Amino acid sequence: MPKTVLVVYAHPESTSLTCQFVRETIQKLVQRGHTILQSDLYGMGWKAIFDESDFPNRINKNRLDFIQESENAYATDQQTLDIATEQRKLLAADIVIFHFPLWWYGMPAILKGWIDRVYAYGFAYGYKGEGNRYRYGDGILKGKRAILSVMVGGPAEDYAPRGINGPLDELLFPITHGALFFPGFDVLPTHAVYGTGKLEITAAKKEFAVWRSRLEHIFNEAPIPFRRQNSGDYQGGILSDHICSGKSGQSIHIDN
Amino acid sequence: MPKTVLVVYAHPESTSLTCQFVRETIQKLVQRGHTILQSDLYGMGWKAIFDESDFPNRINKNRLDFIQESENAYATDQQTLDIATEQRKLLAADIVIFHFPLWWYGMPAILKGWIDRVYAYGFAYGYKGEGNRYRYGDGILKGKRAILSVMVGGPAEDYAPRGINGPLDELLFPITHGALFFPGFDVLPTHAVYGTGKLEITAAKKEFAVWRSRLEHIFNEAPIPFRRQNSGDYQGGILSDHICSGKSGQSIHIDN
Repeated sequence: MPKTVLVVYAHPESTSLTCQFVRETIQKLVQRGHTILQSDLYGMGWKAIFDESDFPNRINKNRLDFIQESENAYATDQQTLDIATEQRKLLAADIVIFHFPLWWYGMPAILKGWIDRVYAYGFAYGYKGEGNRYRYGDGILKGKRAILSVMVGGPAEDYAPRGINGPLDELLFPITHGALFFPGFDVLPTHAVYGTGKLEITAAKKEFAVWRSRLEHIFNEAPIPFRRQNSGDYQGGILSDHICSGKSGQSIHIDN
Repeated sequence: MPKTVLVVYAHPESTSLTCQFVRETIQKLVQRGHTILQSDLYGMGWKAIFDESDFPNRINKNRLDFIQESENAYATDQQTLDIATEQRKLLAADIVIFHFPLWWYGMPAILKGWIDRVYAYGFAYGYKGEGNRYRYGDGILKGKRAILSVMVGGPAEDYAPRGINGPLDELLFPITHGALFFPGFDVLPTHAVYGTGKLEITAAKKEFAVWRSRLEHIFNEAPIPFRRQNSGDYQGGILSDHICSGKSGQSIHIDN
């Protein structure tokens, strides 16, 4: 069945590996009959910085409270056009694919600024005006999928389970769990390409092929089994004692 | 002995808790005789997005390769003035204090963009043109201290060892270890204030007092004992087998 795919990407150079991956994604998914929406953040001149100009009609002109103004702008349909447009794309999408280079163990600022601004109160958090009632597996984006496709300059060994940078999945947990699972996405395991600083053409072609074949199953493969807040596993904000007893940290929030 | 302190902060509202903390920091440290440098990212109109305009004199005008251009601009003193100025502040500082609100489990985009742009090749990475020879405890910022002062909207329990968001220190590891320890900083334990969305004046005053008294010891307290790459603990990019045997993840890179 044809689906709608949103591709969000963050690299200004059309010949970069990131942009080559974007083209592979689009070509493959169009071929399979899907509809593509795009957010080319550099190409769009995306505004990264969340500030007062995001609230043309302030509730409180004396003091800028981001949550209060975001809630009001979203609820009263007074958001800026760029933010509202991205939210509509998210609502239209069955899957969102993020393509970006890993910069200092995270997203480029332009992509972080997409999260900061598009994730309004009432939309990505404070859903239905009910604080934290709907989050981590529940929320406005429930039923949709998301995946990170990350270009990593350094070698894979530095990101291995005992690698010096820390494991890639742990470094990306604030994004996969914190930014994607939070508003309801089913998050697929991250697709990483390592050593992109020195990737030869032959190696790059192999990576494209691996990605293209992964794309064939992207609507069927199992998401990361993050625990849902409202599954009964949590008491308040804390994982119940009988689950992963005596353990702590990120890993206990994955039901492996 | 008087020291030089760089305060980097990211909030546009002067009455925000972040900016109140900044004022506490400055007042307290000036009182103690230290010299203060400031980077008020919103106030400066800091450019968050790393792009081609950061390289007025390109080595390769056909294709934008950030690493190549960054290396060249830094080595030949052709960086933009805003980037060079921040680097000079970093070199002048004995300690860098970052004040920011936690947005989606990370830095606001404007601060991420400060890292992305100021951390040039040859400066924060590729130091002395030797790839990864100097990193994680070695590097241009060795001997300096850094600390994150983070305003967290949610309750502390959500960030507890078994809290649903994951522990704050793990969420911030890409910054403390990845962005600060990497170029050589000694990184102090993060200073977090929770529940800032609903903080009453009395509670805020208590938090200011806690922070002020911490500032008295900021040049003496012990940094997070991250393992130094060149300490002998690593073989290539991997932690040696005999250290934390059988374990993996971020925590093995801390010598507790």
